[in-house]
Amino acid sequence: MNILKSLNWRYATKKFDTTRKVSSTDLEILKEAVRLSASSFGLQPYKVINVEDKELREKLKAASYGQPQVTDASNLFVFCAYTNLTSGHIDKYINLTATTRNINPAELKGFGDSMKGSFANITPEQNYVWAAHQPYIALGNLLNTCALMDIDACPMGGIDADKYDEILGLSKQGLRAEMIATIGYRSEEDATQHWAKVRKPLDEIFETR
Amino acid sequence: MNILKSLNWRYATKKFDTTRKVSSTDLEILKEAVRLSASSFGLQPYKVINVEDKELREKLKAASYGQPQVTDASNLFVFCAYTNLTSGHIDKYINLTATTRNINPAELKGFGDSMKGSFANITPEQNYVWAAHQPYIALGNLLNTCALMDIDACPMGGIDADKYDEILGLSKQGLRAEMIATIGYRSEEDATQHWAKVRKPLDEIFETR
Repeated sequence: MNILKSLNWRYATKKFDTTRKVSSTDLEILKEAVRLSASSFGLQPYKVINVEDKELREKLKAASYGQPQVTDASNLFVFCAYTNLTSGHIDKYINLTATTRNINPAELKGFGDSMKGSFANITPEQNYVWAAHQPYIALGNLLNTCALMDIDACPMGGIDADKYDEILGLSKQGLRAEMIATIGYRSEEDATQHWAKVRKPLDEIFETR
Repeated sequence: MNILKSLNWRYATKKFDTTRKVSSTDLEILKEAVRLSASSFGLQPYKVINVEDKELREKLKAASYGQPQVTDASNLFVFCAYTNLTSGHIDKYINLTATTRNINPAELKGFGDSMKGSFANITPEQNYVWAAHQPYIALGNLLNTCALMDIDACPMGGIDADKYDEILGLSKQGLRAEMIATIGYRSEEDATQHWAKVRKPLDEIFETR
């Protein structure tokens, strides 16, 4: 299977080739893959900031414990979750569903109310925890898609979310940075590409009942 | 791109064809894709219970608000996170790394200590939140892999984690159920397969800076 070949080929790229850029055609495919990712209720409670500006990238590197991929990779995606999903988000989603499927929003009132009921029963903290899970599904999808396209990536959780907020003004949009993905092409000098992949054996990850 | 075709083809399957089973060869590929998924530090702080037993599946359906996919799909993967990642997990990972790469574990002491330092600085709640993010990356990878193989799936967050614990004895292993994926083949009778996919427009999901 090609997919397993691709998943074995990929690795968390430590050193990117600074001379190579992901083409705009390929970048659009990666963005579309993220957009098509599954999410709980289909609500997609996140946004991805595609940071192109060099100065911003330098500042974000400092807010990422100096990890060089932040500036050296072709692209930087910052995955941000909505910290407080409201009825307003749900109404918007209901309207989007109605428009997409060419139906009357009134017919979806029951569906909207049941979603609102689910969120009314949880604490604000649980609301945020729920939202923050969803971009990880998109990240898994993105890493897989990159690998299939022979594009390298390094997902990184080691970021200072408060500093990301200061630099990108995320909380004004109700967002918080969860993790980042740096995307591009591996440098020939990155010795870690030759290291054997470390994964638990199948019988530690899976248990059959 | 084939991948976008596959991602557009997939949908959260509501009704599975109960007569069709995923072949054991394909199932092994799906499990291997999960195993190869990226995770924070590479620690893979989760386990997937592949529930084959029909009686257990019936009980889990009741613990999943009666959603029929739990029993009707060919396969059921229950993604569980470790609720308290300890130094013991890190030591095990260091040993696995040493064995995989044929190096002396002593050479990895600094790496292990730095990971332990990261976990020493966070609360038990933060430890669990961190762990619980990781299986979502694997879920994204799994859904993508299924789609590429023309296998249907429905990821489901609507489960009663306490009841899952009772039925599967998860907390004895330090685990908690996060979500499930039901896997198989869509029924021709599932009308929802013909519904247009609802996704936010690209300029709502992405913002370029």
